[in-house]
Amino acid sequence: MTIYDMAREHAVISSAGSIVGWDQETYLPPAAAKYRASQISWIDSRSHDLATSDAWRAALEDAESTNSGTDPKLTANLRELRRRFNRATKLPTDLVARASAASSLAKHAWADARKHSDFATFAPHLQTLLDLAREMADRWGYANEPYDALLDAYERNTSTAAVATLFDSLQPELTELARRVVEISAARRPSLPPGPYPITAQQQLNAEVAAAIGFDFQAGRIDTTTHPFCTTLGPQDVRLTTRYDEADFTSSLFGILHETGHGLYEQGLPADDFGLPSGSSLSLGIHESQSRLWENHIGRSPEFWQRWYPTAQRYFPQLAGLPMEKFLHYLHRAAFSEIRVEADESTYDLHIILRFGLERRLLNGSLPVSEVPAAWNEAFRGLFGFFPRDDRHGCLQDIHWSMGGLGYFATYSLGNLNAAQLHAAARRDPTIAAASDRADYAPLLAWLRQQVHAHGATLDPADLMTQATGTPPTPEPYLVHLRSRMTG
Amino acid sequence: MTIYDMAREHAVISSAGSIVGWDQETYLPPAAAKYRASQISWIDSRSHDLATSDAWRAALEDAESTNSGTDPKLTANLRELRRRFNRATKLPTDLVARASAASSLAKHAWADARKHSDFATFAPHLQTLLDLAREMADRWGYANEPYDALLDAYERNTSTAAVATLFDSLQPELTELARRVVEISAARRPSLPPGPYPITAQQQLNAEVAAAIGFDFQAGRIDTTTHPFCTTLGPQDVRLTTRYDEADFTSSLFGILHETGHGLYEQGLPADDFGLPSGSSLSLGIHESQSRLWENHIGRSPEFWQRWYPTAQRYFPQLAGLPMEKFLHYLHRAAFSEIRVEADESTYDLHIILRFGLERRLLNGSLPVSEVPAAWNEAFRGLFGFFPRDDRHGCLQDIHWSMGGLGYFATYSLGNLNAAQLHAAARRDPTIAAASDRADYAPLLAWLRQQVHAHGATLDPADLMTQATGTPPTPEPYLVHLRSRMTG
Repeated sequence: MTIYDMAREHAVISSAGSIVGWDQETYLPPAAAKYRASQISWIDSRSHDLATSDAWRAALEDAESTNSGTDPKLTANLRELRRRFNRATKLPTDLVARASAASSLAKHAWADARKHSDFATFAPHLQTLLDLAREMADRWGYANEPYDALLDAYERNTSTAAVATLFDSLQPELTELARRVVEISAARRPSLPPGPYPITAQQQLNAEVAAAIGFDFQAGRIDTTTHPFCTTLGPQDVRLTTRYDEADFTSSLFGILHETGHGLYEQGLPADDFGLPSGSSLSLGIHESQSRLWENHIGRSPEFWQRWYPTAQRYFPQLAGLPMEKFLHYLHRAAFSEIRVEADESTYDLHIILRFGLERRLLNGSLPVSEVPAAWNEAFRGLFGFFPRDDRHGCLQDIHWSMGGLGYFATYSLGNLNAAQLHAAARRDPTIAAASDRADYAPLLAWLRQQVHAHGATLDPADLMTQATGTPPTPEPYLVHLRSRMTG
Repeated sequence: MTIYDMAREHAVISSAGSIVGWDQETYLPPAAAKYRASQISWIDSRSHDLATSDAWRAALEDAESTNSGTDPKLTANLRELRRRFNRATKLPTDLVARASAASSLAKHAWADARKHSDFATFAPHLQTLLDLAREMADRWGYANEPYDALLDAYERNTSTAAVATLFDSLQPELTELARRVVEISAARRPSLPPGPYPITAQQQLNAEVAAAIGFDFQAGRIDTTTHPFCTTLGPQDVRLTTRYDEADFTSSLFGILHETGHGLYEQGLPADDFGLPSGSSLSLGIHESQSRLWENHIGRSPEFWQRWYPTAQRYFPQLAGLPMEKFLHYLHRAAFSEIRVEADESTYDLHIILRFGLERRLLNGSLPVSEVPAAWNEAFRGLFGFFPRDDRHGCLQDIHWSMGGLGYFATYSLGNLNAAQLHAAARRDPTIAAASDRADYAPLLAWLRQQVHAHGATLDPADLMTQATGTPPTPEPYLVHLRSRMTG
C-alpha cells in the first residue's frame, strides 16, 4: 500500500469513529453510554495504530524518497503527512497514556471544583496537566517557547509570538470599542417578543436558511444536541446540530448559521482527496473563520435580514410588531459577561486574550498554578472593569484545560480575525459585494470555495490568508467590522 | 487473550458495525451512500478477520482442552463458538468472494427481472447462486441433504426433514382454515375510518404501548425507516424502527409491536455476556417467535384492545364511531394475496410452505431452475386455489434468493409455530393467563425472560422449546390459535 492508500484507509476508520461519536451525541439511549465508550476506544486505537505504524513510516519514507518535487500537491501532502506522523510518533506510549489518565481524572476534578467554586481542589490536576504539556512540548520540539508546540496541534506552523503581536495590537481598541458597544446596547434595551417560537417552525426556518446559503442537504443533515457542533462522517456526509429555545428562535438559528459555516467548509473540501491533507480542513483558526463569517458577518448583517426578516415573520407571527431595526438591535446586543460562552461578538475576544496570556505564562513558568485565580481576576478587571464574582465565574468556567487543551483558546480569536479579513477581501470584488448586499451569497461562497476550501490543508494558515487577502492575519479588518457594527 | 476476551472484542467490533449500518438505514444523506459502503466493509472485514484468525483458533483450542466440563455454560459457549468458527473457516476465501460477487450481481438482475416480470433474465443468476449454495453446503457438511447445511446458518442443529414433517402436518388444516377465514373476513367487509391519523399521535401511541409491554427506552429507541427492523448496537442499546401510514395507524403500531418483540428478546439477553453465545440470541426461528408472540398473540387479542382501544380513540378521535368488535374484524381481516409480505396471519404460512418445498427440491436437484415458475404457479394454485397473475407476483417477488439466502424462509413459519407453543405454555400458569387477560404482560414477559431470553444461545432451538413447553415444536398450538382467532 502507498501512503495515499494508507491515508485513505485511515480516513475510512476515523470517519467510522465519527459516525459512532455522532450517534453518541445525538441518539444514544442513556444506559448505552458505558459500552459506547468501548466501541469508540476500539476504533480510535485502530486509527492511531495505523497512523503510527512501521508500515506507515515505511510508506511515507518511500513516497518522500521518490518524490521528484514537480507536483506541488503531492509535495504539500507529503510535508503535512510527515508533520502529523512526527507529532504522533514523537510521544512515547507511556506519556500518551499518562496524559490520557491525567485528563480523565482532571475532568472529574474540574467539574467538581467548578460546582463548588473551589480552585484548590483542581490546582494539583492543572499542575500535572501543565507538567505533561511541557513534557510533550519538549518531545515535539519548538522554536521559541513551549506554547509554540501546543499551538501547532491546532494552528500549524503558527508562532506564539505572532499571535501575541496580533492580540496586543487588537486589545486597546477592542477594550474601548467593547465598552462603548455595551453602553449603546444598554441604552437600546433590546428584546424579542415573547415566545413560544415553536421548534418545528424553527427547524423549517433553519433548514431554509442553511440551504439558501449553500448547505447541501443531499450530503448532510441537521439534528438536535445539547451543544451544537459540526462533524464529518464521510466526504459527502456533514452533520450539523443545534439546540432549541422556545423563547428565542435566534438561539438555534445562529447555532445553525455558525455550524453551517463549518459545514460549507467541509462540503467544499476536495471530496476525491478525502483522507489526504489536500482533502482535509487546515486548522481550527481557518475552520472558525468560516463559521464566524456566516454567523456574524452574514447572519447579523442588515442585508441578510432585509431578505430573511419577512420569512421569519411568517414563521413567527409575534415578530409582526417588531420593526427590523429593533430586531437588529436585539441581534447586536452586547453586555459584559463573566462567561466566555455567553459573550457577544464585541466582547468575546477579550475573554480569549485573557486566557491566551495566562496560558502562555503558565507554560513558560512565569505564572505558578496557585496564582491562577488572582491573575485571572486581575486581568479580567483590566479588560472588563470589574472582578468576577467567584472562580466558578472566573478561572474555573471552561472545560478546555481539564482536557489538556492548552493552546486551544487562541484559535477562536484567530477565527474571528480571519473571518473579517477574508470577508473584506471577498467584498473587494464588486460582483460579490453587490450580490451579498442582495442576500445572494453564491458568489461569496464560490470565492471561499476557491480561496479557502479548495486548498484543503496544503498551505499553512498564514500563507493561505496571504494568498487569499494579500496579507497575513492583521487586526484591522476585524476592527473595521466591529466599528461598523456598533454604528449600524 | 482468552477466547472469551476475543469474543467480547469481536462484539465491540461487530456492534460498532451495527451502529454504522443503523445510521445508514435511518439518517444517511443520499450522497453519502457510496462512501458508507466502504466504512461498513472495513468494519466487517475486521470482525471477520478476528473471528477466523489463527489466534482465535488457538484460543478456542486452548479453552476446549482445559475445559473440565463441570461448568455447563462454559461448555455450551465453547460448543457454539466452535460451531461458528467451523462454519466461518470451512469456506475458502475465494468461495466467499465468488458468493459475494454473485449475489451482488444477482440482486441487480433480480430487481430488473422483477420489474419486467422476466424470470429468464434472473434464471442464470439463480443457477449460479444455487451452485454456490451447494458448494458451500458440501464444505460445511450435512447429515442428510444440502438444505440441512443452509438451514443450520439460521436455525442451528435443525434437520430439514423435521421441518418438512412439521410443515406437512400443518398444511392440510391450514389450507382449509385459511379458506374459511378469508370467507368470513370477506363477509365482514372490515374497514377503518378515514385518516389522517397524524404521525406524531401514532408515535406517541406506539411509544406508550412499547413501554407498557416492557420495552426499556433507557436502553433503546424508535426511529423511522422504509422497512421496519430491530438492531442491537450494544448490550443496552436496542434500536427499533417502523414506518408511518397516515391513512392507517395500525401499520406503524403492528410494526412496532413486532419489532418490540425482537427488542424485548435482545434486552432480555444476559448483558454481562454480550458477545458470548450465552449473551446472544439463539436463532431466527426463536427470534421470530418473540416478535410474532407480541404482534399477533398479544397485539391482535381482544384483551389487549380492551385496555388500549380507549387510548387509541383518544389519540384518533375518528375511531369514536367504530365499535371495538368491528375494529378487531379489521385487525383480523384476511384475504388470499399473491404477495407474501402482504399476507395476513391466516394465510402467511402457506407462502412459506410453498417456498420451502421449492427450495428443497432446487437444492437436492429434483427441480431445475428453468422449471421454477411453473412449479411455483402449480404449488400456489394447490394452496390458494388460483394462479398468480405473473412471475412478478409469483416466483420473482422476494429478494431472499438473489442475496443467496436459500434456507431462510422456513424460519418465518418456525417463528409462528414457536410463538403459539410458547404462548400456550406460558398461559398454562393461571397467574400469567389472568394478568394477560387484564393486559398486564409483566408476568408473561418474566416467563419469557426466564424460559427463552436468559438462555441466550446455550441451547439448541428444539431443546429450548422442549424445556420451556414440554415438547419440541409441534403444529397443534398454532392451529388452536388460528382456529380461535377465526371464531373470535
